[in-house]
Amino acid sequence: VTHVFDAGLHLEPAADGVVRGSTHSQWANMVGPFGGMTAATMLRAVECRPDVHGDPLTLTVNFLAPIADGEFLISTRAVRTNRSNQHWIVELAQDGEVKTTATAVFGPRRDTWASPQETPPNVSAPEDIEPQGFPAPITWTTHYEMRFIEGAVPQPGSEPSESSTTTLWVRDQPARPLDFAALTAQCDIFYPRIYLRLGTAVPAGTISMTVYFHAGRDDLHAHGDDFVLATAHAQRFGGGYFDQSGQIWDRNGTLLASTHQLVYFKN
Amino acid sequence: VTHVFDAGLHLEPAADGVVRGSTHSQWANMVGPFGGMTAATMLRAVECRPDVHGDPLTLTVNFLAPIADGEFLISTRAVRTNRSNQHWIVELAQDGEVKTTATAVFGPRRDTWASPQETPPNVSAPEDIEPQGFPAPITWTTHYEMRFIEGAVPQPGSEPSESSTTTLWVRDQPARPLDFAALTAQCDIFYPRIYLRLGTAVPAGTISMTVYFHAGRDDLHAHGDDFVLATAHAQRFGGGYFDQSGQIWDRNGTLLASTHQLVYFKN
Repeated sequence: VTHVFDAGLHLEPAADGVVRGSTHSQWANMVGPFGGMTAATMLRAVECRPDVHGDPLTLTVNFLAPIADGEFLISTRAVRTNRSNQHWIVELAQDGEVKTTATAVFGPRRDTWASPQETPPNVSAPEDIEPQGFPAPITWTTHYEMRFIEGAVPQPGSEPSESSTTTLWVRDQPARPLDFAALTAQCDIFYPRIYLRLGTAVPAGTISMTVYFHAGRDDLHAHGDDFVLATAHAQRFGGGYFDQSGQIWDRNGTLLASTHQLVYFKN
Repeated sequence: VTHVFDAGLHLEPAADGVVRGSTHSQWANMVGPFGGMTAATMLRAVECRPDVHGDPLTLTVNFLAPIADGEFLISTRAVRTNRSNQHWIVELAQDGEVKTTATAVFGPRRDTWASPQETPPNVSAPEDIEPQGFPAPITWTTHYEMRFIEGAVPQPGSEPSESSTTTLWVRDQPARPLDFAALTAQCDIFYPRIYLRLGTAVPAGTISMTVYFHAGRDDLHAHGDDFVLATAHAQRFGGGYFDQSGQIWDRNGTLLASTHQLVYFKN
Protein backbone atom coordinates (compact mmCIF):
# COMPACT_ATOMS: atom_id res chain seq x y z
CA VAL A 1 0.00 0.00 0.00
CA THR A 2 1.35 3.44 -0.93
CA HIS A 3 1.82 5.71 2.07
CA VAL A 4 -0.42 8.79 1.86
CA PHE A 5 2.67 11.04 1.80
CA ASP A 6 4.09 9.17 -1.20
CA ALA A 7 0.71 9.31 -2.88
CA GLY A 8 0.77 13.10 -2.52
CA LEU A 9 4.33 13.27 -3.90
CA HIS A 10 3.68 11.14 -6.97
CA LEU A 11 5.25 12.50 -10.18
CA GLU A 12 5.45 11.17 -13.73
CA PRO A 13 7.77 12.15 -16.58
CA ALA A 14 6.07 14.61 -18.96
CA ALA A 15 8.88 16.00 -21.13
CA ASP A 16 12.61 16.62 -20.97
CA GLY A 17 13.17 18.19 -17.54
CA VAL A 18 9.43 18.32 -16.83
CA VAL A 19 7.33 16.11 -14.56
CA ARG A 20 3.58 15.99 -14.09
CA GLY A 21 1.87 15.75 -10.72
CA SER A 22 -1.57 16.31 -9.32
CA THR A 23 -3.00 17.73 -6.15
CA HIS A 24 -4.22 15.01 -3.80
CA SER A 25 -7.44 15.39 -1.82
CA GLN A 26 -5.72 14.05 1.31
CA TRP A 27 -3.30 17.01 1.31
CA ALA A 28 -5.88 19.78 0.99
CA ASN A 29 -5.35 22.90 3.07
CA MET A 30 -7.88 25.73 3.49
CA VAL A 31 -6.94 27.07 0.03
CA GLY A 32 -4.95 24.75 -2.26
CA PRO A 33 -2.65 22.01 -0.98
CA PHE A 34 -0.53 22.03 2.21
CA GLY A 35 2.50 24.23 1.44
CA GLY A 36 4.83 21.64 2.96
CA MET A 37 3.61 19.10 0.40
CA THR A 38 4.16 21.60 -2.40
CA ALA A 39 7.69 22.30 -1.13
CA ALA A 40 8.38 18.56 -0.85
CA THR A 41 7.09 18.04 -4.39
CA MET A 42 9.39 20.76 -5.77
CA LEU A 43 12.31 19.01 -4.06
CA ARG A 44 11.23 15.59 -5.30
CA ALA A 45 11.06 16.88 -8.88
CA VAL A 46 14.81 17.58 -8.63
CA GLU A 47 15.50 14.28 -6.86
CA CYS A 48 13.84 12.51 -9.84
CA ARG A 49 16.33 13.97 -12.30
CA PRO A 50 18.81 11.35 -13.54
CA ASP A 51 21.59 13.95 -13.52
CA VAL A 52 21.04 15.05 -9.91
CA HIS A 53 24.33 15.52 -8.06
CA GLY A 54 24.35 14.65 -4.35
CA ASP A 55 21.72 15.39 -1.74
CA PRO A 56 19.69 18.49 -0.93
CA LEU A 57 21.63 21.23 0.87
CA THR A 58 19.17 24.10 0.63
CA LEU A 59 15.75 24.78 -0.85
CA THR A 60 13.86 28.06 -1.16
CA VAL A 61 10.24 27.86 -2.27
CA ASN A 62 8.18 30.92 -3.25
CA PHE A 63 4.41 30.63 -3.19
CA LEU A 64 3.09 32.84 -6.01
CA ALA A 65 -0.55 31.81 -6.19
CA PRO A 66 -2.83 29.05 -4.90
CA ILE A 67 -2.53 25.75 -6.75
CA ALA A 68 -5.94 24.73 -8.10
CA ASP A 69 -7.21 21.17 -7.65
CA GLY A 70 -5.88 19.05 -10.49
CA GLU A 71 -2.75 18.52 -12.53
CA PHE A 72 0.40 20.62 -12.58
CA LEU A 73 3.72 20.54 -14.41
CA ILE A 74 7.08 21.07 -12.71
CA SER A 75 10.08 22.10 -14.79
CA THR A 76 13.57 21.65 -13.34
CA ARG A 77 16.65 23.34 -14.75
CA ALA A 78 20.20 22.59 -13.60
CA VAL A 79 21.61 26.09 -14.01
CA ARG A 80 25.10 25.00 -13.03
CA THR A 81 26.86 21.85 -11.84
CA ASN A 82 30.14 22.29 -9.99
CA ARG A 83 32.26 19.59 -8.45
CA SER A 84 30.95 20.47 -5.01
CA ASN A 85 27.36 21.47 -5.75
CA GLN A 86 24.56 21.80 -8.27
CA HIS A 87 22.16 24.76 -8.59
CA TRP A 88 18.56 24.34 -9.68
CA ILE A 89 15.68 26.58 -10.69
CA VAL A 90 12.28 24.91 -10.41
CA GLU A 91 8.88 26.17 -11.57
CA LEU A 92 5.43 24.70 -11.01
CA ALA A 93 2.73 25.76 -13.46
CA GLN A 94 -0.92 25.05 -14.19
CA ASP A 95 -2.26 25.89 -17.66
CA GLY A 96 0.93 27.81 -18.37
CA GLU A 97 0.53 29.98 -15.27
CA VAL A 98 3.42 29.77 -12.77
CA LYS A 99 2.12 29.09 -9.25
CA THR A 100 5.31 28.20 -7.36
CA THR A 101 9.03 28.81 -7.95
CA ALA A 102 12.03 27.38 -6.15
CA THR A 103 15.78 27.38 -6.12
CA ALA A 104 17.65 24.42 -4.71
CA VAL A 105 21.27 23.51 -4.16
CA PHE A 106 22.29 19.88 -4.09
CA GLY A 107 25.72 18.42 -3.42
CA PRO A 108 27.68 15.70 -1.71
CA ARG A 109 28.44 15.92 2.00
CA ARG A 110 32.10 15.46 2.94
CA ASP A 111 33.87 14.34 6.08
CA THR A 112 34.89 17.56 7.86
CA TRP A 113 35.19 19.09 11.28
CA ALA A 114 31.75 19.03 12.85
CA SER A 115 30.02 20.62 15.81
CA PRO A 116 26.37 20.55 16.85
CA GLN A 117 26.76 24.17 18.14
CA GLU A 118 23.14 24.66 19.26
CA THR A 119 21.06 22.49 21.58
CA PRO A 120 17.36 21.66 21.32
CA PRO A 121 14.70 22.92 23.74
CA ASN A 122 14.59 20.85 26.92
CA VAL A 123 11.30 18.95 26.62
CA SER A 124 9.58 15.74 27.70
CA ALA A 125 9.69 12.66 25.50
CA PRO A 126 6.88 12.39 22.95
CA GLU A 127 5.49 9.35 24.77
CA ASP A 128 4.85 11.56 27.82
CA ILE A 129 2.75 14.09 25.91
CA GLU A 130 -0.85 13.68 24.79
CA PRO A 131 -1.48 13.64 21.04
CA GLN A 132 -3.43 16.72 19.97
CA GLY A 133 -4.39 17.67 16.44
CA PHE A 134 -5.63 20.88 14.92
CA PRO A 135 -8.97 21.93 16.46
CA ALA A 136 -11.07 21.95 13.27
CA PRO A 137 -9.10 19.32 11.40
CA ILE A 138 -7.89 20.40 8.00
CA THR A 139 -7.41 17.29 5.88
CA TRP A 140 -3.60 17.30 5.64
CA THR A 141 -3.13 17.72 9.39
CA THR A 142 -4.70 14.31 10.01
CA HIS A 143 -1.64 12.74 8.33
CA TYR A 144 0.61 13.90 11.13
CA GLU A 145 0.72 12.77 14.72
CA MET A 146 1.31 15.94 16.74
CA ARG A 147 2.20 16.28 20.41
CA PHE A 148 2.36 19.94 21.38
CA ILE A 149 4.69 21.05 24.14
CA GLU A 150 4.09 24.76 23.73
CA GLY A 151 1.92 26.99 21.55
CA ALA A 152 -0.79 24.60 20.36
CA VAL A 153 -3.29 25.92 17.84
CA PRO A 154 -5.58 28.56 19.42
CA GLN A 155 -9.12 27.37 20.15
CA PRO A 156 -12.23 29.51 20.24
CA GLY A 157 -11.84 31.65 23.36
CA SER A 158 -8.02 31.42 23.42
CA GLU A 159 -6.19 34.43 24.80
CA PRO A 160 -3.47 36.19 22.81
CA SER A 161 -0.02 34.77 23.64
CA GLU A 162 2.98 36.94 24.49
CA SER A 163 5.22 34.24 23.04
CA SER A 164 5.31 33.44 19.33
CA THR A 165 6.86 30.01 19.91
CA THR A 166 5.32 26.66 19.04
CA THR A 167 7.17 23.47 19.92
CA LEU A 168 5.84 20.00 19.14
CA TRP A 169 6.83 16.44 18.50
CA VAL A 170 5.55 15.36 15.10
CA ARG A 171 5.74 12.39 12.77
CA ASP A 172 3.95 11.08 9.74
CA GLN A 173 0.78 9.17 10.50
CA PRO A 174 1.14 6.28 9.85
CA ALA A 175 4.85 6.41 10.67
CA ARG A 176 7.14 6.50 7.61
CA PRO A 177 10.96 6.53 7.38
CA LEU A 178 12.20 10.10 7.19
CA ASP A 179 13.63 11.25 3.86
CA PHE A 180 14.50 14.68 2.50
CA ALA A 181 11.01 15.21 1.09
CA ALA A 182 9.29 14.35 4.38
CA LEU A 183 11.73 16.55 6.28
CA THR A 184 10.91 19.42 3.90
CA ALA A 185 7.19 19.01 4.54
CA GLN A 186 7.75 18.89 8.30
CA CYS A 187 9.54 22.25 8.07
CA ASP A 188 6.13 23.71 7.19
CA ILE A 189 4.24 21.99 10.02
CA PHE A 190 3.72 25.22 11.96
CA TYR A 191 0.47 27.14 11.67
CA PRO A 192 0.94 30.93 11.24
CA ARG A 193 2.61 32.55 14.28
CA ILE A 194 0.14 35.45 14.05
CA TYR A 195 -2.68 33.08 15.17
CA LEU A 196 -0.79 32.40 18.38
CA ARG A 197 -0.01 36.04 19.13
CA LEU A 198 -3.60 37.18 18.45
CA GLY A 199 -5.24 34.07 19.93
CA THR A 200 -7.29 33.66 16.77
CA ALA A 201 -6.98 32.86 13.08
CA VAL A 202 -6.67 35.66 10.51
CA PRO A 203 -5.96 35.41 6.77
CA ALA A 204 -2.27 34.44 6.45
CA GLY A 205 -0.05 32.55 4.04
CA THR A 206 3.59 31.73 3.48
CA ILE A 207 5.23 33.84 0.77
CA SER A 208 8.68 32.27 0.83
CA MET A 209 10.18 29.35 2.73
CA THR A 210 13.79 28.23 3.02
CA VAL A 211 15.13 24.92 4.31
CA TYR A 212 18.78 24.27 5.20
CA PHE A 213 19.32 20.53 5.31
CA HIS A 214 21.77 19.62 8.03
CA ALA A 215 20.85 15.93 7.96
CA GLY A 216 22.81 13.71 5.65
CA ARG A 217 21.71 10.23 4.63
CA ASP A 218 23.30 8.75 7.75
CA ASP A 219 21.26 11.03 10.00
CA LEU A 220 18.06 10.11 8.15
CA HIS A 221 18.85 6.41 8.30
CA ALA A 222 19.58 6.61 12.03
CA HIS A 223 16.36 8.55 12.54
CA GLY A 224 14.07 6.02 10.87
CA ASP A 225 10.39 6.79 11.45
CA ASP A 226 10.75 8.37 14.87
CA PHE A 227 9.23 11.71 15.93
CA VAL A 228 11.02 14.97 15.17
CA LEU A 229 11.01 17.89 17.57
CA ALA A 230 9.85 20.97 15.66
CA THR A 231 10.07 24.47 17.08
CA ALA A 232 9.45 27.87 15.51
CA HIS A 233 9.12 31.51 16.52
CA ALA A 234 8.70 34.92 14.89
CA GLN A 235 11.06 37.88 15.15
CA ARG A 236 8.96 40.85 14.05
CA PHE A 237 5.34 41.42 12.97
CA GLY A 238 4.27 44.50 11.03
CA GLY A 239 3.32 46.03 7.70
CA GLY A 240 1.32 42.91 6.83
CA TYR A 241 4.21 40.46 7.25
CA PHE A 242 6.17 38.45 9.79
CA ASP A 243 9.11 36.11 9.62
CA GLN A 244 9.39 32.68 11.20
CA SER A 245 12.54 30.76 12.13
CA GLY A 246 12.35 27.11 13.01
CA GLN A 247 14.41 24.05 13.77
CA ILE A 248 13.76 20.35 13.29
CA TRP A 249 15.61 18.13 15.80
CA ASP A 250 15.76 14.42 16.36
CA ARG A 251 15.30 12.77 19.75
CA ASN A 252 19.07 12.68 20.34
CA GLY A 253 19.48 16.42 19.88
CA THR A 254 20.75 16.34 16.31
CA LEU A 255 19.64 19.32 14.23
CA LEU A 256 18.15 17.82 11.06
CA ALA A 257 17.10 21.08 9.41
CA SER A 258 16.81 24.80 10.07
CA THR A 259 14.01 26.59 8.29
CA HIS A 260 12.77 30.12 7.76
CA GLN A 261 9.70 31.79 6.27
CA LEU A 262 8.25 35.13 5.38
CA VAL A 263 4.50 35.11 5.92
CA TYR A 264 1.77 37.48 4.82
CA PHE A 265 -1.15 38.33 7.09
CA LYS A 266 -4.22 40.58 7.24
CA ASN A 267 -6.02 41.78 10.30
CA VAL B 1 30.87 62.72 -5.75
CA THR B 2 29.41 59.23 -6.10
CA HIS B 3 29.57 57.20 -2.89
CA VAL B 4 31.72 54.09 -3.30
CA PHE B 5 28.71 51.86 -2.54
CA ASP B 6 26.70 53.49 -5.33
CA ALA B 7 29.69 53.19 -7.67
CA GLY B 8 29.72 49.42 -6.97
CA LEU B 9 25.98 49.18 -7.58
CA HIS B 10 25.97 51.06 -10.88
CA LEU B 11 23.81 49.44 -13.59
CA GLU B 12 22.89 50.47 -17.14
CA PRO B 13 20.05 49.29 -19.38
CA ALA B 14 21.26 46.62 -21.84
CA ALA B 15 18.08 45.08 -23.27
CA ASP B 16 14.47 44.52 -22.33
CA GLY B 17 14.62 43.25 -18.73
CA VAL B 18 18.42 43.14 -18.80
CA VAL B 19 20.91 45.51 -17.18
CA ARG B 20 24.69 45.64 -17.48
CA GLY B 21 27.05 46.12 -14.54
CA SER B 22 30.70 45.64 -13.81
CA THR B 23 32.76 44.49 -10.88
CA HIS B 24 34.39 47.38 -9.06
CA SER B 25 37.94 47.14 -7.75
CA GLN B 26 36.87 48.74 -4.45
CA TRP B 27 34.51 45.82 -3.73
CA ALA B 28 36.99 43.02 -4.32
CA ASN B 29 36.93 40.07 -1.92
CA MET B 30 39.50 37.26 -1.78
CA VAL B 31 37.89 35.66 -4.87
CA GLY B 32 35.49 37.79 -6.90
CA PRO B 33 33.47 40.64 -5.41
CA PHE B 34 32.02 40.90 -1.88
CA GLY B 35 28.91 38.69 -1.83
CA GLY B 36 26.92 41.41 -0.10
CA MET B 37 27.58 43.72 -3.05
CA THR B 38 26.50 40.99 -5.48
CA ALA B 39 23.30 40.44 -3.48
CA ALA B 40 22.65 44.20 -3.37
CA THR B 41 23.20 44.41 -7.14
CA MET B 42 20.69 41.59 -7.79
CA LEU B 43 18.16 43.51 -5.69
CA ARG B 44 18.95 46.81 -7.39
CA ALA B 45 18.40 45.23 -10.82
CA VAL B 46 14.79 44.58 -9.76
CA GLU B 47 14.43 48.02 -8.17
CA CYS B 48 15.45 49.54 -11.56
CA ARG B 49 12.54 47.90 -13.34
CA PRO B 50 9.84 50.44 -14.27
CA ASP B 51 7.14 47.85 -13.49
CA VAL B 52 8.40 47.05 -9.97
CA HIS B 53 5.55 46.75 -7.46
CA GLY B 54 6.27 47.95 -3.93
CA ASP B 55 9.38 47.41 -1.85
CA PRO B 56 11.57 44.35 -1.20
CA LEU B 57 10.03 41.80 1.17
CA THR B 58 12.42 38.88 0.70
CA LEU B 59 15.48 38.07 -1.38
CA THR B 60 17.29 34.74 -1.79
CA VAL B 61 20.62 34.83 -3.63
CA ASN B 62 22.47 31.68 -4.74
CA PHE B 63 26.19 31.94 -5.45
CA LEU B 64 26.92 29.50 -8.29
CA ALA B 65 30.45 30.46 -9.26
CA PRO B 66 32.91 33.32 -8.70
CA ILE B 67 32.21 36.45 -10.71
CA ALA B 68 35.28 37.32 -12.80
CA ASP B 69 36.59 40.89 -12.90
CA GLY B 70 34.71 42.77 -15.60
CA GLU B 71 31.22 43.16 -17.00
CA PHE B 72 28.14 41.11 -16.25
CA LEU B 73 24.52 41.08 -17.37
CA ILE B 74 21.57 40.71 -15.00
CA SER B 75 18.22 39.56 -16.34
CA THR B 76 15.08 40.14 -14.29
CA ARG B 77 11.80 38.37 -14.90
CA ALA B 78 8.55 39.24 -13.10
CA VAL B 79 7.11 35.73 -12.95
CA ARG B 80 3.89 36.92 -11.38
CA THR B 81 2.38 40.17 -10.14
CA ASN B 82 -0.46 39.91 -7.65
CA ARG B 83 -2.27 42.76 -5.94
CA SER B 84 -0.28 42.16 -2.77
CA ASN B 85 3.11 41.07 -4.13
CA GLN B 86 5.34 40.49 -7.12
CA HIS B 87 7.65 37.51 -7.65
CA TRP B 88 10.97 37.82 -9.49
CA ILE B 89 13.60 35.46 -10.86
CA VAL B 90 16.97 37.13 -11.41
CA GLU B 91 20.08 35.75 -13.12
CA LEU B 92 23.56 37.24 -13.38
CA ALA B 93 25.74 35.94 -16.22
CA GLN B 94 29.15 36.55 -17.73
CA ASP B 95 29.78 35.42 -21.32
CA GLY B 96 26.52 33.46 -21.20
CA GLU B 97 27.55 31.55 -18.07
CA VAL B 98 25.22 32.01 -15.07
CA LYS B 99 27.19 32.97 -11.95
CA THR B 100 24.42 34.04 -9.54
CA THR B 101 20.68 33.41 -9.32
CA ALA B 102 18.09 35.00 -7.08
CA THR B 103 14.42 35.03 -6.31
CA ALA B 104 12.85 38.11 -4.80
CA VAL B 105 9.41 39.09 -3.61
CA PHE B 106 8.38 42.74 -3.63
CA GLY B 107 5.15 44.27 -2.43
CA PRO B 108 3.55 47.14 -0.60
CA ARG B 109 3.54 47.24 3.19
CA ARG B 110 0.13 47.79 4.81
CA ASP B 111 -0.96 49.18 8.13
CA THR B 112 -1.59 46.14 10.34
CA TRP B 113 -1.20 44.90 13.87
CA ALA B 114 2.49 45.05 14.71
CA SER B 115 4.78 43.70 17.40
CA PRO B 116 8.56 43.84 17.67
CA GLN B 117 8.47 40.35 19.31
CA GLU B 118 12.25 39.92 19.73
CA THR B 119 14.72 42.27 21.40
CA PRO B 120 18.29 43.03 20.32
CA PRO B 121 21.40 41.96 22.25
CA ASN B 122 22.11 44.29 25.17
CA VAL B 123 25.26 46.12 24.09
CA SER B 124 27.12 49.40 24.52
CA ALA B 125 26.55 52.29 22.13
CA PRO B 126 28.81 52.31 19.06
CA GLU B 127 30.50 55.50 20.32
CA ASP B 128 31.76 53.54 23.35
CA ILE B 129 33.46 50.83 21.27
CA GLU B 130 36.77 51.13 19.43
CA PRO B 131 36.64 50.85 15.63
CA GLN B 132 38.36 47.67 14.45
CA GLY B 133 38.59 46.42 10.90
CA PHE B 134 39.54 43.09 9.42
CA PRO B 135 43.13 42.14 10.35
CA ALA B 136 44.55 41.83 6.82
CA PRO B 137 42.22 44.30 5.18
CA ILE B 138 40.38 42.97 2.18
CA THR B 139 39.45 45.89 -0.04
CA TRP B 140 35.69 45.88 0.47
CA THR B 141 35.96 45.78 4.27
CA THR B 142 37.60 49.22 4.28
CA HIS B 143 34.25 50.67 3.11
CA TYR B 144 32.62 49.76 6.39
CA GLU B 145 33.20 51.18 9.82
CA MET B 146 33.06 48.22 12.18
CA ARG B 147 32.92 48.19 15.97
CA PHE B 148 32.98 44.62 17.26
CA ILE B 149 31.27 43.77 20.51
CA GLU B 150 31.81 40.02 20.30
CA GLY B 151 33.51 37.60 17.92
CA ALA B 152 35.92 39.87 16.02
CA VAL B 153 37.88 38.31 13.16
CA PRO B 154 40.46 35.80 14.46
CA GLN B 155 44.05 37.03 14.37
CA PRO B 156 47.15 34.87 14.02
CA GLY B 157 47.41 33.03 17.34
CA SER B 158 43.66 33.29 18.11
CA GLU B 159 42.17 30.42 20.09
CA PRO B 160 39.13 28.51 18.84
CA SER B 161 35.91 30.01 20.22
CA GLU B 162 33.14 27.93 21.81
CA SER B 163 30.63 30.53 20.63
CA SER B 164 29.81 31.02 16.96
CA THR B 165 28.38 34.50 17.56
CA THR B 166 29.68 37.75 16.13
CA THR B 167 28.01 41.02 17.09
CA LEU B 168 29.12 44.40 15.77
CA TRP B 169 28.00 47.91 15.04
CA VAL B 170 28.56 48.68 11.39
CA ARG B 171 27.88 51.45 8.90
CA ASP B 172 29.02 52.48 5.47
CA GLN B 173 32.28 54.42 5.41
CA PRO B 174 31.77 57.26 4.61
CA ALA B 175 28.29 57.24 6.15
CA ARG B 176 25.45 56.89 3.63
CA PRO B 177 21.66 56.90 4.19
CA LEU B 178 20.43 53.32 4.54
CA ASP B 179 18.39 51.92 1.66
CA PHE B 180 17.28 48.39 0.80
CA ALA B 181 20.44 47.71 -1.24
CA ALA B 182 22.77 48.83 1.56
CA LEU B 183 20.77 46.82 4.09
CA THR B 184 21.12 43.76 1.85
CA ALA B 185 24.89 44.17 1.69
CA GLN B 186 25.10 44.62 5.47
CA CYS B 187 23.32 41.28 5.87
CA ASP B 188 26.51 39.69 4.47
CA ILE B 189 28.91 41.66 6.71
CA PHE B 190 29.82 38.56 8.77
CA TYR B 191 32.97 36.61 7.99
CA PRO B 192 32.45 32.80 7.97
CA ARG B 193 31.45 31.45 11.42
CA ILE B 194 33.86 28.53 10.96
CA TYR B 195 36.81 30.96 11.28
CA LEU B 196 35.59 31.94 14.73
CA ARG B 197 35.00 28.36 15.90
CA LEU B 198 38.40 27.15 14.65
CA GLY B 199 40.27 30.36 15.50
CA THR B 200 41.66 30.48 11.97
CA ALA B 201 40.60 30.98 8.36
CA VAL B 202 39.81 27.98 6.14
CA PRO B 203 38.36 27.93 2.61
CA ALA B 204 34.69 28.89 2.94
CA GLY B 205 32.01 30.59 0.88
CA THR B 206 28.32 31.39 1.01
CA ILE B 207 26.19 29.08 -1.15
CA SER B 208 22.80 30.67 -0.53
CA MET B 209 21.70 33.76 1.38
CA THR B 210 18.20 34.93 2.30
CA VAL B 211 17.11 38.34 3.55
CA TYR B 212 13.72 39.09 5.08
CA PHE B 213 13.18 42.84 4.98
CA HIS B 214 11.32 44.00 8.07
CA ALA B 215 12.18 47.65 7.51
CA GLY B 216 9.78 49.69 5.47
CA ARG B 217 10.62 53.06 3.96
CA ASP B 218 9.68 54.82 7.18
CA ASP B 219 12.14 52.71 9.17
CA LEU B 220 14.90 53.44 6.65
CA HIS B 221 14.13 57.16 6.65
CA ALA B 222 14.16 57.28 10.46
CA HIS B 223 17.44 55.36 10.48
CA GLY B 224 19.32 57.72 8.17
CA ASP B 225 23.04 56.96 8.06
CA ASP B 226 23.39 55.67 11.62
CA PHE B 227 25.11 52.43 12.61
CA VAL B 228 23.23 49.13 12.50
CA LEU B 229 23.73 46.41 15.10
CA ALA B 230 24.52 43.19 13.25
CA THR B 231 24.62 39.81 14.97
CA ALA B 232 24.94 36.29 13.58
CA HIS B 233 25.50 32.74 14.81
CA ALA B 234 25.62 29.21 13.42
CA GLN B 235 23.38 26.30 14.38
CA ARG B 236 25.25 23.23 13.13
CA PHE B 237 28.59 22.54 11.42
CA GLY B 238 29.28 19.30 9.56
CA GLY B 239 29.54 17.50 6.25
CA GLY B 240 31.30 20.51 4.73
CA TYR B 241 28.53 23.02 5.52
CA PHE B 242 27.12 25.23 8.22
CA ASP B 243 24.19 27.60 8.46
CA GLN B 244 24.18 31.14 9.77
CA SER B 245 21.27 33.15 11.14
CA GLY B 246 21.60 36.87 11.68
CA GLN B 247 19.71 39.99 12.57
CA ILE B 248 20.21 43.64 11.66
CA TRP B 249 18.88 46.08 14.29
CA ASP B 250 18.83 49.82 14.56
CA ARG B 251 19.93 51.73 17.64
CA ASN B 252 16.36 51.91 18.96
CA GLY B 253 15.90 48.15 18.91
CA THR B 254 13.93 47.95 15.66
CA LEU B 255 14.63 44.79 13.67
CA LEU B 256 15.46 46.01 10.15
CA ALA B 257 16.17 42.60 8.60
CA SER B 258 16.62 38.96 9.50
CA THR B 259 19.03 37.00 7.34
CA HIS B 260 20.15 33.42 6.87
CA GLN B 261 22.90 31.63 4.95
CA LEU B 262 24.17 28.20 4.07
CA VAL B 263 27.94 28.24 3.85
CA TYR B 264 30.42 25.76 2.40
CA PHE B 265 33.75 25.07 4.12
CA LYS B 266 36.79 22.83 3.83
CA ASN B 267 39.18 21.85 6.58
